[in-house]
Amino acid sequence: MSLKIISEWRNFGGTLSVHEHFSAVTNCTMRFGVFTPSQAEDGPVPVLWYLSGLTCTWANVMEKSGIQKYAAEHGLMVVAPDTSPRGNEVPDAEGYDLGHGAGFYLKATQAPWDRHYHMDEYLTVDLQWLFADHFKKADLSRQGITGHSMGGHGAITLHLKNQDRYQSCSAFAPIVSPASAPWGQKAFGQYLGPDTETWKAYDATELVAQTQSGADILIDQGDADQFLGEQLDPAKFLGAAESHGQRVTHRLQPGYDHSYYFIASFMSDHVAHHAAVLKG
Amino acid sequence: MSLKIISEWRNFGGTLSVHEHFSAVTNCTMRFGVFTPSQAEDGPVPVLWYLSGLTCTWANVMEKSGIQKYAAEHGLMVVAPDTSPRGNEVPDAEGYDLGHGAGFYLKATQAPWDRHYHMDEYLTVDLQWLFADHFKKADLSRQGITGHSMGGHGAITLHLKNQDRYQSCSAFAPIVSPASAPWGQKAFGQYLGPDTETWKAYDATELVAQTQSGADILIDQGDADQFLGEQLDPAKFLGAAESHGQRVTHRLQPGYDHSYYFIASFMSDHVAHHAAVLKG
Repeated sequence: MSLKIISEWRNFGGTLSVHEHFSAVTNCTMRFGVFTPSQAEDGPVPVLWYLSGLTCTWANVMEKSGIQKYAAEHGLMVVAPDTSPRGNEVPDAEGYDLGHGAGFYLKATQAPWDRHYHMDEYLTVDLQWLFADHFKKADLSRQGITGHSMGGHGAITLHLKNQDRYQSCSAFAPIVSPASAPWGQKAFGQYLGPDTETWKAYDATELVAQTQSGADILIDQGDADQFLGEQLDPAKFLGAAESHGQRVTHRLQPGYDHSYYFIASFMSDHVAHHAAVLKG
Repeated sequence: MSLKIISEWRNFGGTLSVHEHFSAVTNCTMRFGVFTPSQAEDGPVPVLWYLSGLTCTWANVMEKSGIQKYAAEHGLMVVAPDTSPRGNEVPDAEGYDLGHGAGFYLKATQAPWDRHYHMDEYLTVDLQWLFADHFKKADLSRQGITGHSMGGHGAITLHLKNQDRYQSCSAFAPIVSPASAPWGQKAFGQYLGPDTETWKAYDATELVAQTQSGADILIDQGDADQFLGEQLDPAKFLGAAESHGQRVTHRLQPGYDHSYYFIASFMSDHVAHHAAVLKG
Protein backbone atom coordinates (compact mmCIF):
# COMPACT_ATOMS: atom_id res chain seq x y z
CA MET A 1 0.00 0.00 0.00
CA SER A 2 1.72 3.18 -1.11
CA LEU A 3 1.16 6.51 0.48
CA LYS A 4 1.76 9.97 -0.94
CA ILE A 5 2.06 13.25 0.95
CA ILE A 6 -0.10 15.90 -0.69
CA SER A 7 0.47 18.84 1.68
CA GLU A 8 2.28 19.59 4.88
CA TRP A 9 2.12 22.53 7.28
CA ARG A 10 3.79 23.43 10.52
CA ASN A 11 0.97 23.88 13.04
CA PHE A 12 0.93 24.42 16.82
CA GLY A 13 4.47 23.15 17.13
CA GLY A 14 3.60 19.94 15.30
CA THR A 15 2.79 19.03 11.73
CA LEU A 16 -0.45 18.86 9.78
CA SER A 17 -0.11 16.63 6.74
CA VAL A 18 -2.48 15.38 4.05
CA HIS A 19 -1.98 11.93 2.57
CA GLU A 20 -3.32 10.06 -0.44
CA HIS A 21 -3.43 6.31 -1.01
CA PHE A 22 -5.31 3.73 -3.02
CA SER A 23 -7.63 1.71 -0.82
CA ALA A 24 -8.45 -1.85 -1.84
CA VAL A 25 -11.44 -1.64 0.49
CA THR A 26 -13.13 1.36 -1.11
CA ASN A 27 -11.58 0.62 -4.52
CA CYS A 28 -10.52 4.19 -5.05
CA THR A 29 -7.98 6.80 -4.08
CA MET A 30 -8.59 8.22 -0.62
CA ARG A 31 -7.24 11.23 1.25
CA PHE A 32 -6.93 11.91 4.96
CA GLY A 33 -5.36 14.53 7.21
CA VAL A 34 -3.08 13.88 10.18
CA PHE A 35 -1.98 16.22 12.93
CA THR A 36 1.19 14.96 14.60
CA PRO A 37 2.05 16.78 17.85
CA SER A 38 5.59 17.61 18.88
CA GLN A 39 5.39 14.96 21.64
CA ALA A 40 5.65 12.32 18.90
CA GLU A 41 9.33 13.23 18.61
CA ASP A 42 9.79 11.40 21.91
CA GLY A 43 7.83 8.28 20.99
CA PRO A 44 4.41 6.99 19.96
CA VAL A 45 1.37 9.01 21.03
CA PRO A 46 -2.33 8.09 21.30
CA VAL A 47 -4.52 8.59 18.24
CA LEU A 48 -7.83 10.44 18.10
CA TRP A 49 -10.00 9.82 15.02
CA TYR A 50 -12.34 12.59 13.95
CA LEU A 51 -15.17 11.59 11.60
CA SER A 52 -16.72 14.48 9.75
CA GLY A 53 -20.33 15.13 8.82
CA LEU A 54 -22.14 15.25 5.48
CA THR A 55 -20.28 16.98 2.62
CA CYS A 56 -17.01 17.29 4.56
CA THR A 57 -13.45 16.13 3.86
CA TRP A 58 -10.38 15.95 6.12
CA ALA A 59 -10.16 19.73 5.83
CA ASN A 60 -13.19 20.98 7.74
CA VAL A 61 -12.08 19.94 11.19
CA MET A 62 -8.45 20.92 10.63
CA GLU A 63 -9.37 24.35 9.26
CA LYS A 64 -12.25 25.24 11.54
CA SER A 65 -12.35 23.40 14.85
CA GLY A 66 -9.06 24.24 16.54
CA ILE A 67 -8.58 20.54 17.37
CA GLN A 68 -4.84 20.80 16.66
CA LYS A 69 -4.35 23.25 19.52
CA TYR A 70 -5.73 20.86 22.10
CA ALA A 71 -4.09 17.82 20.53
CA ALA A 72 -0.79 19.69 20.75
CA GLU A 73 -1.40 20.42 24.43
CA HIS A 74 -2.31 16.82 25.30
CA GLY A 75 0.09 15.11 22.90
CA LEU A 76 -2.46 13.31 20.75
CA MET A 77 -2.26 12.52 17.06
CA VAL A 78 -5.47 13.43 15.22
CA VAL A 79 -6.59 11.70 12.05
CA ALA A 80 -9.38 13.09 9.89
CA PRO A 81 -10.47 10.66 7.16
CA ASP A 82 -12.75 11.56 4.28
CA THR A 83 -16.50 11.00 4.58
CA SER A 84 -16.88 8.68 1.58
CA PRO A 85 -15.10 7.16 -1.37
CA ARG A 86 -14.69 9.72 -4.16
CA GLY A 87 -13.70 10.00 -7.79
CA ASN A 88 -15.31 9.79 -11.20
CA GLU A 89 -15.58 6.02 -10.93
CA VAL A 90 -17.46 6.19 -7.61
CA PRO A 91 -21.26 6.36 -7.90
CA ASP A 92 -22.78 9.61 -6.71
CA ALA A 93 -26.28 11.01 -6.33
CA GLU A 94 -28.10 14.30 -6.46
CA GLY A 95 -28.24 15.97 -3.08
CA TYR A 96 -25.68 16.35 -0.34
CA ASP A 97 -26.90 13.45 1.79
CA LEU A 98 -26.18 10.45 -0.46
CA GLY A 99 -23.09 9.39 -2.40
CA HIS A 100 -19.94 11.48 -2.33
CA GLY A 101 -19.44 13.04 1.08
CA ALA A 102 -22.14 10.86 2.63
CA GLY A 103 -20.63 7.43 3.28
CA PHE A 104 -22.34 6.99 6.68
CA TYR A 105 -19.48 4.79 7.94
CA LEU A 106 -21.10 1.51 6.84
CA LYS A 107 -20.65 -1.31 4.33
CA ALA A 108 -23.04 -0.87 1.43
CA THR A 109 -24.60 -4.09 0.13
CA GLN A 110 -26.76 -2.68 -2.65
CA ALA A 111 -25.82 -1.74 -6.21
CA PRO A 112 -24.44 0.61 -7.33
CA TRP A 113 -22.99 1.47 -3.93
CA ASP A 114 -21.60 -1.93 -2.93
CA ARG A 115 -18.35 -1.70 -4.86
CA HIS A 116 -16.95 1.40 -3.11
CA TYR A 117 -19.00 2.41 -0.08
CA HIS A 118 -17.19 0.41 2.63
CA MET A 119 -16.25 3.19 4.99
CA ASP A 120 -16.49 1.05 8.14
CA GLU A 121 -13.95 -1.50 6.95
CA TYR A 122 -11.87 1.31 5.45
CA LEU A 123 -11.57 2.84 8.91
CA THR A 124 -11.38 -0.22 11.12
CA VAL A 125 -9.13 -2.37 8.93
CA ASP A 126 -7.54 -0.56 6.02
CA LEU A 127 -6.44 2.59 7.80
CA GLN A 128 -5.42 0.58 10.86
CA TRP A 129 -2.99 -1.44 8.74
CA LEU A 130 -1.81 1.63 6.91
CA PHE A 131 -1.10 3.41 10.17
CA ALA A 132 0.70 0.37 11.57
CA ASP A 133 2.90 0.37 8.48
CA HIS A 134 3.49 4.06 7.91
CA PHE A 135 2.85 6.03 11.10
CA LYS A 136 5.24 4.64 13.64
CA LYS A 137 4.49 7.54 15.95
CA ALA A 138 0.87 6.40 16.26
CA ASP A 139 0.33 4.25 19.36
CA LEU A 140 -2.45 2.01 18.05
CA SER A 141 -2.97 0.48 21.45
CA ARG A 142 -4.47 3.81 22.53
CA GLN A 143 -7.14 5.17 20.20
CA GLY A 144 -10.22 7.29 20.63
CA ILE A 145 -12.93 8.33 18.21
CA THR A 146 -15.12 11.40 17.84
CA GLY A 147 -17.10 13.11 15.13
CA HIS A 148 -19.83 15.51 14.11
CA SER A 149 -23.38 14.76 12.97
CA MET A 150 -23.03 11.84 10.51
CA GLY A 151 -19.52 11.50 11.93
CA GLY A 152 -20.93 11.41 15.46
CA HIS A 153 -23.05 8.48 14.33
CA GLY A 154 -19.89 6.89 12.97
CA ALA A 155 -17.92 7.54 16.16
CA ILE A 156 -20.51 6.05 18.51
CA THR A 157 -21.32 3.00 16.37
CA LEU A 158 -17.68 2.20 15.62
CA HIS A 159 -16.82 2.63 19.31
CA LEU A 160 -19.57 0.28 20.45
CA LYS A 161 -18.58 -2.34 17.88
CA ASN A 162 -14.81 -1.95 18.36
CA GLN A 163 -14.40 -1.17 22.02
CA ASP A 164 -10.92 -2.60 22.28
CA ARG A 165 -9.74 -0.48 19.38
CA TYR A 166 -11.44 2.83 20.17
CA GLN A 167 -11.33 3.08 23.93
CA SER A 168 -12.71 6.59 24.23
CA CYS A 169 -15.66 8.13 22.44
CA SER A 170 -17.36 11.47 22.06
CA ALA A 171 -19.58 13.21 19.56
CA PHE A 172 -20.89 16.60 18.49
CA ALA A 173 -24.58 16.65 17.52
CA PRO A 174 -24.52 12.97 16.45
CA ILE A 175 -27.19 11.26 14.38
CA VAL A 176 -27.94 8.75 17.13
CA SER A 177 -31.01 7.14 15.55
CA PRO A 178 -30.36 7.15 11.81
CA ALA A 179 -32.87 4.37 11.24
CA SER A 180 -35.56 6.74 12.53
CA ALA A 181 -34.32 9.93 10.88
CA PRO A 182 -34.79 11.14 7.29
CA TRP A 183 -31.04 11.37 6.57
CA GLY A 184 -30.42 7.83 7.79
CA GLN A 185 -33.52 6.37 6.20
CA LYS A 186 -32.57 7.76 2.80
CA ALA A 187 -28.96 6.58 3.05
CA PHE A 188 -29.62 3.19 4.66
CA GLY A 189 -32.41 2.46 2.15
CA GLN A 190 -29.98 3.03 -0.68
CA TYR A 191 -26.82 1.51 0.78
CA LEU A 192 -28.37 -1.38 2.73
CA GLY A 193 -31.70 -1.93 1.01
CA PRO A 194 -35.26 -2.09 2.34
CA ASP A 195 -34.73 -4.78 4.99
CA THR A 196 -34.55 -2.59 8.08
CA GLU A 197 -33.14 -5.47 10.12
CA THR A 198 -29.82 -4.84 8.36
CA TRP A 199 -29.92 -1.21 9.45
CA LYS A 200 -29.65 -2.06 13.14
CA ALA A 201 -25.90 -2.69 13.03
CA TYR A 202 -25.46 0.98 12.11
CA ASP A 203 -27.91 2.59 14.51
CA ALA A 204 -26.44 3.73 17.82
CA THR A 205 -29.79 3.49 19.59
CA GLU A 206 -30.23 -0.13 18.50
CA LEU A 207 -26.59 -0.99 19.19
CA VAL A 208 -26.44 0.41 22.68
CA ALA A 209 -29.25 -1.90 23.71
CA GLN A 210 -27.12 -4.86 22.57
CA THR A 211 -23.63 -3.87 23.63
CA GLN A 212 -22.30 -1.33 26.08
CA SER A 213 -18.79 -0.05 26.61
CA GLY A 214 -17.07 0.82 29.83
CA ALA A 215 -16.42 4.30 28.49
CA ASP A 216 -18.33 7.45 29.29
CA ILE A 217 -19.48 8.82 25.93
CA LEU A 218 -19.35 12.63 25.90
CA ILE A 219 -21.96 14.25 23.66
CA ASP A 220 -22.48 17.96 23.07
CA GLN A 221 -25.65 19.10 21.34
CA GLY A 222 -26.72 22.67 20.64
CA ASP A 223 -30.29 23.43 21.58
CA ALA A 224 -30.60 25.84 18.63
CA ASP A 225 -29.36 23.18 16.19
CA GLN A 226 -31.53 23.42 13.08
CA PHE A 227 -31.49 19.62 12.79
CA LEU A 228 -32.41 18.88 16.38
CA GLY A 229 -35.68 17.02 16.51
CA GLU A 230 -36.18 15.70 13.02
CA GLN A 231 -32.66 14.41 12.34
CA LEU A 232 -30.86 14.26 15.67
CA ASP A 233 -33.45 13.56 18.38
CA PRO A 234 -31.25 12.29 21.23
CA ALA A 235 -34.02 11.16 23.62
CA LYS A 236 -34.38 7.57 22.39
CA PHE A 237 -30.63 6.99 22.42
CA LEU A 238 -30.25 8.46 25.88
CA GLY A 239 -33.13 6.32 27.12
CA ALA A 240 -31.65 3.15 25.63
CA ALA A 241 -28.21 3.98 27.03
CA GLU A 242 -29.62 4.55 30.49
CA SER A 243 -31.73 1.37 30.40
CA HIS A 244 -28.74 -0.73 29.43
CA GLY A 245 -26.08 0.83 31.60
CA GLN A 246 -24.08 2.73 29.00
CA ARG A 247 -22.58 5.83 30.55
CA VAL A 248 -23.25 8.96 28.51
CA THR A 249 -22.55 12.57 29.44
CA HIS A 250 -25.00 14.52 27.30
CA ARG A 251 -24.76 18.29 27.41
CA LEU A 252 -27.43 20.45 25.81
CA GLN A 253 -25.65 23.68 24.99
CA PRO A 254 -27.95 26.71 25.01
CA GLY A 255 -28.01 28.81 21.85
CA TYR A 256 -25.58 26.71 19.80
CA ASP A 257 -26.38 25.47 16.31
CA HIS A 258 -24.97 22.73 14.04
CA SER A 259 -21.98 24.70 12.72
CA TYR A 260 -18.26 24.51 13.27
CA TYR A 261 -18.63 27.55 15.53
CA PHE A 262 -20.44 25.16 17.88
CA ILE A 263 -17.82 22.43 17.46
CA ALA A 264 -14.92 24.84 18.01
CA SER A 265 -16.54 26.13 21.21
CA PHE A 266 -16.42 22.71 22.88
CA MET A 267 -13.50 20.98 21.16
CA SER A 268 -11.24 21.67 24.13
CA ASP A 269 -13.45 19.56 26.39
CA HIS A 270 -13.64 16.71 23.88
CA VAL A 271 -9.91 16.42 23.38
CA ALA A 272 -9.42 16.53 27.17
CA HIS A 273 -12.06 13.80 27.54
CA HIS A 274 -10.13 11.51 25.18
CA ALA A 275 -6.76 12.39 26.69
CA ALA A 276 -8.01 11.48 30.16
CA VAL A 277 -8.87 7.96 28.96
CA LEU A 278 -6.00 7.39 26.55
CA LYS A 279 -3.30 8.83 28.79
CA GLY A 280 -4.93 8.04 32.14
CA MET B 1 -26.55 54.90 9.01
CA SER B 2 -28.59 51.71 9.11
CA LEU B 3 -27.20 48.35 10.03
CA LYS B 4 -28.53 44.91 9.23
CA ILE B 5 -27.65 41.61 10.92
CA ILE B 6 -26.90 38.96 8.27
CA SER B 7 -25.96 36.01 10.49
CA GLU B 8 -25.51 35.23 14.14
CA TRP B 9 -23.94 32.27 15.95
CA ARG B 10 -23.35 31.36 19.55
CA ASN B 11 -19.59 30.89 19.86
CA PHE B 12 -17.30 30.32 22.86
CA GLY B 13 -19.95 31.59 25.25
CA GLY B 14 -20.33 34.80 23.27
CA THR B 15 -21.83 35.76 19.93
CA LEU B 16 -20.40 35.95 16.45
CA SER B 17 -22.46 38.20 14.21
CA VAL B 18 -22.17 39.48 10.66
CA HIS B 19 -23.44 42.94 9.80
CA GLU B 20 -24.15 44.83 6.61
CA HIS B 21 -24.40 48.57 6.12
CA PHE B 22 -24.08 51.18 3.41
CA SER B 23 -20.91 53.19 3.80
CA ALA B 24 -20.84 56.76 2.52
CA VAL B 25 -17.04 56.54 2.61
CA THR B 26 -16.66 53.56 0.29
CA ASN B 27 -19.93 54.33 -1.53
CA CYS B 28 -21.12 50.75 -1.36
CA THR B 29 -22.58 48.13 0.92
CA MET B 30 -20.02 46.70 3.35
CA ARG B 31 -20.01 43.66 5.62
CA PHE B 32 -18.05 42.95 8.78
CA GLY B 33 -17.97 40.31 11.50
CA VAL B 34 -18.02 40.93 15.24
CA PHE B 35 -17.28 38.58 18.10
CA THR B 36 -18.83 39.81 21.33
CA PRO B 37 -17.59 37.97 24.42
CA SER B 38 -19.80 37.13 27.36
CA GLN B 39 -17.99 39.74 29.48
CA ALA B 40 -19.83 42.40 27.46
CA GLU B 41 -22.96 41.50 29.42
CA ASP B 42 -21.35 43.29 32.35
CA GLY B 43 -20.30 46.42 30.48
CA PRO B 44 -18.19 47.73 27.60
CA VAL B 45 -15.12 45.71 26.64
CA PRO B 46 -11.98 46.65 24.66
CA VAL B 47 -12.05 46.18 20.89
CA LEU B 48 -9.47 44.33 18.80
CA TRP B 49 -9.56 44.97 15.05
CA TYR B 50 -8.33 42.21 12.76
CA LEU B 51 -7.46 43.25 9.21
CA SER B 52 -7.33 40.37 6.75
CA GLY B 53 -5.00 39.74 3.85
CA LEU B 54 -5.53 39.64 0.10
CA THR B 55 -8.75 37.93 -1.11
CA CYS B 56 -10.21 37.61 2.41
CA THR B 57 -13.47 38.77 3.96
CA TRP B 58 -14.60 38.93 7.61
CA ALA B 59 -14.96 35.13 7.48
CA ASN B 60 -11.38 33.90 7.21
CA VAL B 61 -10.22 34.91 10.64
CA MET B 62 -13.46 33.91 12.34
CA GLU B 63 -13.54 30.49 10.67
CA LYS B 64 -9.89 29.59 10.77
CA SER B 65 -7.82 31.40 13.40
CA GLY B 66 -9.47 30.53 16.71
CA ILE B 67 -9.35 34.23 17.69
CA GLN B 68 -12.77 33.97 19.35
CA LYS B 69 -11.46 31.48 21.92
CA TYR B 70 -8.81 33.87 23.19
CA ALA B 71 -11.05 36.92 22.92
CA ALA B 72 -13.57 35.04 25.05
CA GLU B 73 -10.89 34.29 27.64
CA HIS B 74 -9.65 37.87 27.82
CA GLY B 75 -12.97 39.60 27.33
CA LEU B 76 -12.21 41.43 24.09
CA MET B 77 -14.58 42.26 21.26
CA VAL B 78 -13.10 41.36 17.87
CA VAL B 79 -14.09 43.12 14.67
CA ALA B 80 -13.14 41.75 11.27
CA PRO B 81 -13.88 44.20 8.44
CA ASP B 82 -13.78 43.31 4.77
CA THR B 83 -10.58 43.89 2.78
CA SER B 84 -12.07 46.22 0.15
CA PRO B 85 -15.26 47.76 -1.13
CA ARG B 86 -17.26 45.23 -3.14
CA GLY B 87 -20.20 44.96 -5.49
CA ASN B 88 -20.95 45.21 -9.18
CA GLU B 89 -20.55 48.97 -9.11
CA VAL B 90 -17.08 48.79 -7.56
CA PRO B 91 -14.18 48.62 -10.05
CA ASP B 92 -12.27 45.37 -10.02
CA ALA B 93 -9.23 43.97 -11.81
CA GLU B 94 -7.85 40.68 -13.01
CA GLY B 95 -5.71 38.98 -10.41
CA TYR B 96 -6.16 38.59 -6.67
CA ASP B 97 -3.91 41.48 -5.68
CA LEU B 98 -5.81 44.50 -7.03
CA GLY B 99 -9.44 45.57 -6.76
CA HIS B 100 -11.95 43.48 -4.83
CA GLY B 101 -10.31 41.88 -1.78
CA ALA B 102 -7.21 44.05 -2.16
CA GLY B 103 -8.04 47.46 -0.70
CA PHE B 104 -4.63 47.90 1.00
CA TYR B 105 -6.18 50.08 3.74
CA LEU B 106 -5.52 53.36 1.93
CA LYS B 107 -7.36 56.21 0.19
CA ALA B 108 -7.17 55.81 -3.57
CA THR B 109 -6.69 59.01 -5.51
CA GLN B 110 -6.62 57.65 -9.06
CA ALA B 111 -9.51 56.72 -11.36
CA PRO B 112 -11.29 54.36 -11.45
CA TRP B 113 -10.44 53.49 -7.84
CA ASP B 114 -10.95 56.87 -6.21
CA ARG B 115 -14.71 56.66 -5.82
CA HIS B 116 -14.78 53.54 -3.60
CA TYR B 117 -11.34 52.51 -2.39
CA HIS B 118 -11.17 54.48 0.86
CA MET B 119 -10.52 51.68 3.32
CA ASP B 120 -8.45 53.80 5.71
CA GLU B 121 -11.19 56.36 6.27
CA TYR B 122 -13.77 53.56 6.30
CA LEU B 123 -11.95 52.00 9.25
CA THR B 124 -10.78 55.04 11.15
CA VAL B 125 -13.89 57.21 10.75
CA ASP B 126 -16.90 55.41 9.33
CA LEU B 127 -16.73 52.24 11.41
CA GLN B 128 -15.71 54.23 14.48
CA TRP B 129 -18.92 56.26 14.26
CA LEU B 130 -20.98 53.22 13.47
CA PHE B 131 -19.61 51.40 16.50
CA ALA B 132 -20.20 54.42 18.70
CA ASP B 133 -23.82 54.44 17.55
CA HIS B 134 -24.65 50.75 17.40
CA PHE B 135 -22.23 48.77 19.58
CA LYS B 136 -22.62 50.14 23.06
CA LYS B 137 -20.63 47.21 24.44
CA ALA B 138 -17.54 48.37 22.53
CA ASP B 139 -15.26 50.50 24.71
CA LEU B 140 -13.81 52.74 22.01
CA SER B 141 -11.36 54.27 24.45
CA ARG B 142 -9.51 50.92 24.42
CA GLN B 143 -8.76 49.58 20.93
CA GLY B 144 -6.05 47.46 19.42
CA ILE B 145 -5.31 46.45 15.85
CA THR B 146 -3.78 43.40 14.24
CA GLY B 147 -3.81 41.71 10.87
CA HIS B 148 -2.22 39.32 8.41
CA SER B 149 -0.06 40.10 5.37
CA MET B 150 -1.81 43.03 3.62
CA GLY B 151 -3.77 43.33 6.88
CA GLY B 152 -0.53 43.41 8.86
CA HIS B 153 0.50 46.35 6.70
CA GLY B 154 -2.85 47.93 7.52
CA ALA B 155 -2.53 47.27 11.24
CA ILE B 156 0.95 48.75 11.59
CA THR B 157 0.34 51.81 9.41
CA LEU B 158 -3.03 52.62 10.98
CA HIS B 159 -1.53 52.17 14.45
CA LEU B 160 1.38 54.50 13.74
CA LYS B 161 -0.95 57.14 12.29
CA ASN B 162 -3.69 56.75 14.91
CA GLN B 163 -1.85 55.93 18.10
CA ASP B 164 -4.49 57.35 20.40
CA ARG B 165 -7.17 55.24 18.76
CA TYR B 166 -5.33 51.93 18.37
CA GLN B 167 -3.17 51.67 21.46
CA SER B 168 -1.90 48.15 20.85
CA CYS B 169 -0.60 46.64 17.62
CA SER B 170 0.53 43.30 16.29
CA ALA B 171 0.82 41.58 12.93
CA PHE B 172 1.23 38.21 11.27
CA ALA B 173 3.61 38.18 8.30
CA PRO B 174 2.94 41.85 7.50
CA ILE B 175 3.86 43.58 4.25
CA VAL B 176 6.09 46.09 6.04
CA SER B 177 7.61 47.71 2.96
CA PRO B 178 4.85 47.71 0.33
CA ALA B 179 6.56 50.51 -1.61
CA SER B 180 9.48 48.13 -2.19
CA ALA B 181 7.47 44.94 -2.78
CA PRO B 182 5.70 43.76 -5.95
CA TRP B 183 2.26 43.53 -4.30
CA GLY B 184 2.51 47.06 -2.93
CA GLN B 185 4.05 48.54 -6.05
CA LYS B 186 1.26 47.18 -8.22
CA ALA B 187 -1.49 48.35 -5.85
CA PHE B 188 0.00 51.73 -4.94
CA GLY B 189 0.77 52.47 -8.59
CA GLN B 190 -2.89 51.92 -9.44
CA TYR B 191 -4.55 53.42 -6.37
CA LEU B 192 -2.13 56.29 -5.71
CA GLY B 193 -0.48 56.89 -9.07
CA PRO B 194 3.17 57.03 -10.12
CA ASP B 195 4.34 59.70 -7.67
CA THR B 196 6.02 57.49 -5.08
CA GLU B 197 6.11 60.38 -2.60
CA THR B 198 2.40 59.73 -2.04
CA TRP B 199 3.11 56.10 -1.22
CA LYS B 200 5.09 56.92 1.90
CA ALA B 201 2.02 57.54 4.04
CA TYR B 202 1.12 53.88 3.54
CA ASP B 203 4.50 52.26 3.99
CA ALA B 204 5.30 51.07 7.52
CA THR B 205 9.05 51.33 6.94
CA GLU B 206 8.74 54.96 5.83
CA LEU B 207 6.24 55.80 8.56
CA VAL B 208 8.20 54.38 11.45
CA ALA B 209 11.08 56.69 10.60
CA GLN B 210 8.70 59.66 10.98
CA THR B 211 6.54 58.64 13.92
CA GLN B 212 6.91 56.09 16.66
CA SER B 213 4.41 54.79 19.17
CA GLY B 214 4.95 53.90 22.79
CA ALA B 215 3.63 50.43 22.05
CA ASP B 216 5.63 47.27 21.54
CA ILE B 217 4.56 45.93 18.14
CA LEU B 218 4.43 42.12 18.18
CA ILE B 219 5.19 40.52 14.80
CA ASP B 220 5.24 36.82 13.99
CA GLN B 221 6.75 35.69 10.71
CA GLY B 222 7.16 32.14 9.47
CA ASP B 223 10.60 31.39 8.09
CA ALA B 224 9.07 29.00 5.52
CA ASP B 225 6.64 31.66 4.31
CA GLN B 226 6.51 31.45 0.52
CA PHE B 227 6.32 35.24 0.35
CA LEU B 228 9.20 35.97 2.69
CA GLY B 229 11.91 37.84 0.87
CA GLU B 230 10.24 39.19 -2.22
CA GLN B 231 7.01 40.47 -0.66
CA LEU B 232 7.54 40.59 3.09
CA ASP B 233 11.24 41.30 3.72
CA PRO B 234 11.19 42.53 7.34
CA ALA B 235 14.84 43.65 7.59
CA LYS B 236 14.39 47.24 6.42
CA PHE B 237 11.41 47.80 8.68
CA LEU B 238 13.17 46.32 11.68
CA GLY B 239 16.22 48.45 10.98
CA ALA B 240 14.15 51.62 10.68
CA ALA B 241 12.22 50.77 13.85
CA GLU B 242 15.42 50.21 15.78
CA SER B 243 17.05 53.38 14.47
CA HIS B 244 14.08 55.48 15.48
CA GLY B 245 13.24 53.92 18.80
CA GLN B 246 10.09 52.02 17.90
CA ARG B 247 9.79 48.90 20.03
CA VAL B 248 9.12 45.78 17.97
CA THR B 249 9.10 42.16 19.11
CA HIS B 250 9.80 40.24 15.91
CA ARG B 251 9.65 36.45 16.12
CA LEU B 252 10.82 34.33 13.22
CA GLN B 253 8.90 31.07 13.59
CA PRO B 254 10.76 28.06 12.20
CA GLY B 255 8.91 25.98 9.62
CA TYR B 256 5.76 28.09 9.45
CA ASP B 257 4.31 29.36 6.18
CA HIS B 258 1.83 32.11 5.23
CA SER B 259 -1.37 30.14 5.92
CA TYR B 260 -4.03 30.32 8.59
CA TYR B 261 -2.38 27.26 10.17
CA PHE B 262 0.46 29.65 10.99
CA ILE B 263 -1.88 32.37 12.23
CA ALA B 264 -3.86 29.95 14.39
CA SER B 265 -0.67 28.64 15.98
CA PHE B 266 0.23 32.04 17.42
CA MET B 267 -3.12 33.78 17.80
CA SER B 268 -3.17 33.07 21.52
CA ASP B 269 -0.04 35.17 22.03
CA HIS B 270 -1.38 38.02 19.93
CA VAL B 271 -4.67 38.32 21.76
CA ALA B 272 -2.81 38.17 25.08
CA HIS B 273 -0.48 40.91 23.82
CA HIS B 274 -3.41 43.20 23.11
CA ALA B 275 -5.23 42.31 26.31
CA ALA B 276 -2.14 43.20 28.36
CA VAL B 277 -2.17 46.73 26.91
CA LEU B 278 -5.91 47.31 26.70
CA LYS B 279 -6.75 45.85 30.09
CA GLY B 280 -3.43 46.65 31.80
